[in-house]
Amino acid sequence: MLVLKHVPIRSFGENIAYIHKDCSIYKIDNIKALTRIEIHGGHQPVFAFLQIVDNNKIVRPDELGLNTEAFSQTGLPEGSKITLTLTPPAQSLAAVKRKIAGNILSAKDYEAIINDISAHRYSNSDIASFLVAVGSFVTPSEVLDLTEALRGDQSLDWGNEEIVTDYHCMDEIPGNKIDLIIAAIIAAYGLPMPKTVNSTGSSCTGVLDTMNVLANTDIDIRTFKKIVAEKRAAIANIDKIEICEADKIITAVENQNSLTTQERSIASLLATKMATGISHLLIDIPVGSRAKIKTSQEAMHLRKLIEYVSDMIGLNVDITITDGSEPIGNGIGAALEARDVMKVLKNKEDAPDDLKEKALFMAGRILEFDPKLRGGQGYLVAKEMLKSGKAFDSFEQILKKQGKKEPTQLGHLTRDIVADKAGKIARINTSLIGRIAVLAGAGQYAGAGIDLFHKVGDNVAVGDILYRIYSCNQNDFAFVSSVIESGKTGFDIE
Amino acid sequence: MLVLKHVPIRSFGENIAYIHKDCSIYKIDNIKALTRIEIHGGHQPVFAFLQIVDNNKIVRPDELGLNTEAFSQTGLPEGSKITLTLTPPAQSLAAVKRKIAGNILSAKDYEAIINDISAHRYSNSDIASFLVAVGSFVTPSEVLDLTEALRGDQSLDWGNEEIVTDYHCMDEIPGNKIDLIIAAIIAAYGLPMPKTVNSTGSSCTGVLDTMNVLANTDIDIRTFKKIVAEKRAAIANIDKIEICEADKIITAVENQNSLTTQERSIASLLATKMATGISHLLIDIPVGSRAKIKTSQEAMHLRKLIEYVSDMIGLNVDITITDGSEPIGNGIGAALEARDVMKVLKNKEDAPDDLKEKALFMAGRILEFDPKLRGGQGYLVAKEMLKSGKAFDSFEQILKKQGKKEPTQLGHLTRDIVADKAGKIARINTSLIGRIAVLAGAGQYAGAGIDLFHKVGDNVAVGDILYRIYSCNQNDFAFVSSVIESGKTGFDIE
Repeated sequence: MLVLKHVPIRSFGENIAYIHKDCSIYKIDNIKALTRIEIHGGHQPVFAFLQIVDNNKIVRPDELGLNTEAFSQTGLPEGSKITLTLTPPAQSLAAVKRKIAGNILSAKDYEAIINDISAHRYSNSDIASFLVAVGSFVTPSEVLDLTEALRGDQSLDWGNEEIVTDYHCMDEIPGNKIDLIIAAIIAAYGLPMPKTVNSTGSSCTGVLDTMNVLANTDIDIRTFKKIVAEKRAAIANIDKIEICEADKIITAVENQNSLTTQERSIASLLATKMATGISHLLIDIPVGSRAKIKTSQEAMHLRKLIEYVSDMIGLNVDITITDGSEPIGNGIGAALEARDVMKVLKNKEDAPDDLKEKALFMAGRILEFDPKLRGGQGYLVAKEMLKSGKAFDSFEQILKKQGKKEPTQLGHLTRDIVADKAGKIARINTSLIGRIAVLAGAGQYAGAGIDLFHKVGDNVAVGDILYRIYSCNQNDFAFVSSVIESGKTGFDIE
Repeated sequence: MLVLKHVPIRSFGENIAYIHKDCSIYKIDNIKALTRIEIHGGHQPVFAFLQIVDNNKIVRPDELGLNTEAFSQTGLPEGSKITLTLTPPAQSLAAVKRKIAGNILSAKDYEAIINDISAHRYSNSDIASFLVAVGSFVTPSEVLDLTEALRGDQSLDWGNEEIVTDYHCMDEIPGNKIDLIIAAIIAAYGLPMPKTVNSTGSSCTGVLDTMNVLANTDIDIRTFKKIVAEKRAAIANIDKIEICEADKIITAVENQNSLTTQERSIASLLATKMATGISHLLIDIPVGSRAKIKTSQEAMHLRKLIEYVSDMIGLNVDITITDGSEPIGNGIGAALEARDVMKVLKNKEDAPDDLKEKALFMAGRILEFDPKLRGGQGYLVAKEMLKSGKAFDSFEQILKKQGKKEPTQLGHLTRDIVADKAGKIARINTSLIGRIAVLAGAGQYAGAGIDLFHKVGDNVAVGDILYRIYSCNQNDFAFVSSVIESGKTGFDIE
C-alpha cells in the first residue's frame, strides 16, 4: 500500500501519477516509457500515466502523488492507503486502429471509445490519433454514432418547457457577439435559452470571454437552471456544467493540436446541445474566402450532414448560411465587444448596425420556432423587444443574477492605424484582422483588441483612422506594432 | 526574469515547465490549456509545455521549474536567470495537416518536421498525429525522404573499415536472440558489427534485455567505438549513443501508442543504421500467420520498399524471408534467452538447434558480404567460428569490455504446463506464448519468462512438461496462472 498525496500541478488534460524512483513497494527500475496505471482504493479505479520523481519533497518513497486532475477523481483524502496496478492500453484503441486503417466503425465502437475517454483511459496522444483517424474519413452514420456516444447519460431537464432554444455559429467571425443580444431578445420574449459556452480554442475571443467581462460565467448547474427558470436565459461556462465530459476532454486536445474537423464539430455541437436539453437550435454557417467554410457547396454539404444527424437524434434544427467575409461590429476583443453588445441593447445611436441587424435576423428566426408567431413576424417581434428596452432589462437582470462585474479598463497602450491613401475600402482581410487582435492580446487580456472605425464600402481620406489597437502590456504592443510596421494592416483601399 | 529550478520529474518524452500560479512575472490566470513556451537564457531556446503549480516546495512564484528532460537541454545551472515567451505551435505542423488531408509531402517538409521534433517543439499528441497521418498513406519516395530526414547530421565514422555489418529482424519472434550469436561469429571472423539496439516497445524481451543480463549495455559513444575497434563488435543501448535523436522521440510515442507501421519502421531502421555507420546490412523478414507480416506478398512488398530506399541512400542491404510461425530457442525472457545464447556459443549438447542453425545461416550470409569469401562458404566459415570456440572467446571478451554481469536468478515462482493428452504437437500459437511470457513478467523482470520443453513435431505423452513458467512476483504469477487455468496453453496436440 502507498500513501496518497496531492501534488498540486495542473496538467491540462492528462491524469499524472508521481512515484518516487526508490518507491518502497513497486520496482520502477525498468520503466522506460509512458506507463499506464490504475489506482485502487476509491469508489472506482482511477487511470493515470506514471512519471518518476527524484525528490522527497514532491513524493516520498512510500507515497504516490497525483496531479490535481487525477487526485480529484479519486474522491479520497490525502493520506489514504492505495494500491496500484499496471494497466494495458484501453481496449477500444483496437477500434481506433481499425479507423486508422480506413474502416467504418460501429455505434458500439464509438460508445466504447467515448467511455474510455471519459474514464481518462486515453492519453492525449491516443485522443489525437483518434481525431486524425476520424478526421481523414468518416461516414454520416458514423457522425451520428459519434454524436450519440458523446451525448452521454447526463443531461439537463427543463421540465415541461416545450421549446428550449439556442443559437450557434459554426465559425469565429471577429467581433460576432450577437449571441448575447439574441439571448436578451429571446429571454425578453419569454422563451428559454440556456446557453452553455466553450472557452475558445484558438484565435479570437469567444462568447464566453465577452460575457465574462459583463458577469461571472462560472456558475454551477443549480444556479444555471434557477436563472433560466426565473429570467429565461443564462450564459454559462460549459466546463462548470457536468455534461458531455468526454467531449470536453476531446475538445481540449483538438484545440491544443488544431485537429478540429467539421464532422467532429457537428458531433460535438449536437451532442452538447442535446445534453443541455435544447429542443430548437438555430445554426449559423458563415461562408467567406477567409472563413473556415469557404464555398457555398461546403456549407451545403455541412447543412445536409447537420440535418441528417439532428433529424435522427430528434433535435429541431434550422440552418442559415450567412456572409463570413467581414468582421461584425466594431470591437474585436472581449471588452470592446461587450461595449458593442451593450450599445445595441441600449439602442445607442453609434451602435454597430451590422451587429444589430444580424442579431435581429437570427433572433427573429428563433422566435418563429414558437407556433404562436406567424411566419415573418419573428424579425418584427425581435425589433420590438430591442426598441422597447425589454431586451436590455432582461439582460441586466441576467447579469445581476450571474454576478454583474465592474466595467473592464481598455488596454492603456494604443496605436491608431490610418489610411495612407484616399479612396473606398474595397476589402478587409478578416483573418488577418483577427490575428492582429490576438497579437495585441485579445483572448489573453479582456482589455486588449482592435476597434474598427471603418468597414467595407466606406470612403476614407488620407490620415483617417481605420482602427485603433489596444494592448495591455509592452510585449504584445511591441509585437503587434512590428507586424503593422511591416505593412500588413488588413485593409485594401482602392 | 525568473530563477531556473530543476524539478526532478521524468516525464518520458515531453519537456514540461512548471510555473507557480501566482508567478511574480507572468500572468497565468487565463491559461486554460496546454501552452507552449520558449525558455531563453541558455545557448539556444528550449521549448516546453507549461503546467501550473500551487505549492512553493515545487516552485516558488519567482521560479520556473523544468522537468529533468527540459532542464538538461538548457545546459544552465539551477539559479540561472531566464525569461520565457509564449510560442505558437511548430510551423511544420502545417505540413502534418496537409498529410492528414491526404497530400504527398516533399523532402523539405519531412526535414522541417523532423527538425521541429528534434527541437522538442512537438507535443506527444503532435507526434501521434504525424504518425497516424503517415501511417494511413505514404509513397515510397516519401519513405525515402523521411529516412533522409531521420538520419540527421550526427553519424558514427568507422575510419577506413570497408565493410561494417549488422543484422536486423523486422519482427519480435519470441526467443529469437540470434543477434548475439551472430555478433560473436562475425567478430570472431574479424568483420566489425557495431550494434545499437532499441529497448523493446511492446511485448516480449528484445536483444537489449538479453544482452543486459550478460553485460552492461549503457555505454557511451567513445566506449562503444573503442570496443568495436578492439573486439570487432559491441551491443549498445541506442539511447546512450547520440544519433537520430528525433527518431528516438518518435519511437517512444510510437511504442506508447502502438502506432508502428512498416513504412515508418523501415525509415527508422535504415536511418539508424546509416547513422551508425553500417555499410552492409542483413534484414530478416519473418512471415507467419501470427507474426507481424502474415503473407509472402506482404513480405515481398516490404522487400521492394527496403531495396528502393536503401539503394537510394547507398546502403548495401541483403534481405531474407524466414519462417516466423514458431518461437525460436527454448527460453523466452531475458535470462532464459541469455542461457540459450550461451549454450549455443559453448557448443553445449542441449543447445537449441533451431537457434543455432538460424544464427549460422544468418551469420553465413553476412560473412559473404566479404569479397574474400566464395559464394556458399559463409555458412561453413560461421560453423567453424562457432565449433572452434572462437565465437565464444570473442563474445566473452566483448562481455568483459562492456562490463560482464553476475548470472541472473530465474524467477522463484514456477509452474509446469503438461500435456493433457498423448500425441504430436501440431501447432504452437506463437503470439499467445509470447503474451503468456509477458504476463509471467518477461520484459519487466529479467528472471521471468517461459522455458519450452517441446517444439512443433515432437511426440508427447500425457503428463509430459510442455513448458515451465517463471515469475518473480506473486501478482504476475497469479495472473498468468489464471490465464493458463482458463485453458489457454498455446499448444495444439493432435
